[in-house]
Amino acid sequence: MTEYIKDGAEIYRQSFATIRAESDLTRFPEDVAKVVVRMIHACGMTDLPNDVAFSPGVVRNARAALQAGAPILCDANMVASGVTRRRLPKDNEVLCHLQDPRTPSRAKEIGNTRSAAALELLQDRFEGAVIAIGNAPTALFHLIDLIEAGAPRPAAILGIPVGFIGAAESKEALAATDLEHLVVHGRRGGSAMTAAAINAIASEEE
Amino acid sequence: MTEYIKDGAEIYRQSFATIRAESDLTRFPEDVAKVVVRMIHACGMTDLPNDVAFSPGVVRNARAALQAGAPILCDANMVASGVTRRRLPKDNEVLCHLQDPRTPSRAKEIGNTRSAAALELLQDRFEGAVIAIGNAPTALFHLIDLIEAGAPRPAAILGIPVGFIGAAESKEALAATDLEHLVVHGRRGGSAMTAAAINAIASEEE
Repeated sequence: MTEYIKDGAEIYRQSFATIRAESDLTRFPEDVAKVVVRMIHACGMTDLPNDVAFSPGVVRNARAALQAGAPILCDANMVASGVTRRRLPKDNEVLCHLQDPRTPSRAKEIGNTRSAAALELLQDRFEGAVIAIGNAPTALFHLIDLIEAGAPRPAAILGIPVGFIGAAESKEALAATDLEHLVVHGRRGGSAMTAAAINAIASEEE
Repeated sequence: MTEYIKDGAEIYRQSFATIRAESDLTRFPEDVAKVVVRMIHACGMTDLPNDVAFSPGVVRNARAALQAGAPILCDANMVASGVTRRRLPKDNEVLCHLQDPRTPSRAKEIGNTRSAAALELLQDRFEGAVIAIGNAPTALFHLIDLIEAGAPRPAAILGIPVGFIGAAESKEALAATDLEHLVVHGRRGGSAMTAAAINAIASEEE
């Protein structure tokens, strides 16, 4: 039998202390730093801050939107599943339309992935929403195109898709817009990191 | 408007080709290599193989168990959510008991986290199961202790918890047992990587 810490609150406390001791968070405003800490906690990598880029109002805007009851629109069920419901200030809706019966046919119509089509089907909820892309670069590219073509503007976009084809480019495209955003440049990203960012924005409680 | 690849199958094909070109998979048997490829795909990091350790029969055993209808027992809802149901050979059950009403009181009784208690509540399903730990080191430590104390032996354990407190140690403890296992040593891990491993084991289709 190995001895180990079994107290969840103590594990959190020591984890966050380790992250703050080992990560360079100096270039982040305090509200963004808290989000980055939780993202590091979700991936175990203290060099993550090097790849984080953001617009200065992203956390403030996203938090205000959630406090006003805005929905969280996700590109993947894992992102939605990772959002801790008790941290949400207004029991906010957390939506992912991948399983929507209209998604496969819409994907064919637009010649894009199901992830891109599923996000498009939420277009009438974009206005003032918090959008969390943690998986599919195509969903992020398509989101940017929809907004450039006149779709309603969300309060903030977390652009954290992962992978080898399009991920880095889609995050560069988002960072080049005037939309409130937070991205992890390069190939890294994913649903755990993205849900962690939402959880940090939703409540200031560490 | 940025040009990007919109064909999901082509994105997969190019992603896996990039991973195989950039990763050193030479020390893995082919069945394990396919699992590692999909784990890399889920995290965007081609250096992941350096941290992977495994028992030679882990994929063979886990796959045979799923083909015989064994359940997949998860420590986190995100892991369960990431399992692609259509890849499962027998419409296998995917279980996580974190939301079970007995979990909080059981956690208090055993003086451990809810994750550890939730897994313990699945103890009567351990026999021949595939157990996927993608979040909580305490769940993995407790699982090893339960089996050492006489709980039924699973077919295979994926031990891929993430983080700063106990994660590395819990994976070392698993790798030191005679249980069929696959681990990612160190701090890295998480639900996306773990679900990807299950998805690779469930079906040989890339």
